[in-house]
Amino acid sequence: MKILIIGGKGTIGSKVSSYFSKNNEVVIAGRSGGDTQVDIADSESVAALFEHIGVLDAIICTAGEAKWAPFDQLSESDFYIGLKSKLMGQVNLVRYGSKVLGPGGSITLTTGILADDPVPMTSSAAMVNGAIHSFVKAVALELGNGIRVNAVSSGLVEDAVEKYKDYFPGHHPIPMDKMLRGYIRSVEGKGNGEIIRIYD
Amino acid sequence: MKILIIGGKGTIGSKVSSYFSKNNEVVIAGRSGGDTQVDIADSESVAALFEHIGVLDAIICTAGEAKWAPFDQLSESDFYIGLKSKLMGQVNLVRYGSKVLGPGGSITLTTGILADDPVPMTSSAAMVNGAIHSFVKAVALELGNGIRVNAVSSGLVEDAVEKYKDYFPGHHPIPMDKMLRGYIRSVEGKGNGEIIRIYD
Repeated sequence: MKILIIGGKGTIGSKVSSYFSKNNEVVIAGRSGGDTQVDIADSESVAALFEHIGVLDAIICTAGEAKWAPFDQLSESDFYIGLKSKLMGQVNLVRYGSKVLGPGGSITLTTGILADDPVPMTSSAAMVNGAIHSFVKAVALELGNGIRVNAVSSGLVEDAVEKYKDYFPGHHPIPMDKMLRGYIRSVEGKGNGEIIRIYD
Repeated sequence: MKILIIGGKGTIGSKVSSYFSKNNEVVIAGRSGGDTQVDIADSESVAALFEHIGVLDAIICTAGEAKWAPFDQLSESDFYIGLKSKLMGQVNLVRYGSKVLGPGGSITLTTGILADDPVPMTSSAAMVNGAIHSFVKAVALELGNGIRVNAVSSGLVEDAVEKYKDYFPGHHPIPMDKMLRGYIRSVEGKGNGEIIRIYD
């Protein structure tokens, strides 16, 4: 398969790209590093990413930001960081990416446990994840040509535990190989419109 | 109680305001009609709404738009109609409204079944509803002073069946009094961070 991975150098993305690189042609897109550059918060940059990339079999996004802060310190423009990047960035990947996928191709987006089980300071991040969950279920009803779209929603992954554990009291650390299986299921399975939850 | 109802003249809002008007002081805010005017898609208009309204016991929002169209016909700015109105409009009602609520006051937002069970042409509307569901769960962890926030997520209500039934094959029409009980539960109950689903 020819697979485009956006955010392939991050905590999750590096594991995902390492796995799929073994038996596939992987193109990594990043804001600065990677094989090609894209800023998913900029829809023109997303459109440009797909202009010369050719036909793909799978697109995986592990990129996207949202601002973490106490609710009473989040300005309206703080909320728009997440809406433009992790939300509309991934929506635009589906808008433009679905046009370059071959029959039966897949798009895998990344959300997270905050959608279902938020913690303080995540009103913006939780919102964006929940938005993607409902978007995936809705858009899966409409993509033709056998094209599938799913989201992987993982809990706090082991490689991020040291940095974030104080924000997630009592949350189960998710082993990286368990998280990875969510992406394998989406890309190599046949599911469509699924929210693949990996929370314990 | 002194209750502010935004969108109190719509299909859902008129039933909600009719009920609460019986035993409470109700102020209805609408884009044109109502006791006071507000455009929830404009954050300055939302901020202004609360400037001179005094202390409230409950805020109910039954307003908010999102564009319905086939996914491949939705432009990026079409998606932003819903993000600015039904999503950030309701977020801004919580941002500004929570500051004028007395202890134990409540905020009730409106979403809908599309968040969980979308139909074609609703990738934008579903997204916005799902975003609010996760936002409500997240922000409920942070509001102090006993202030509560919930969302009522109803299926296709009976008064809208004639207009929308072709889009919702096999969906149960929700009796208006059943829908209304979701708002009563949120305002008069003690729940916080609840998504009150009324789907059958």
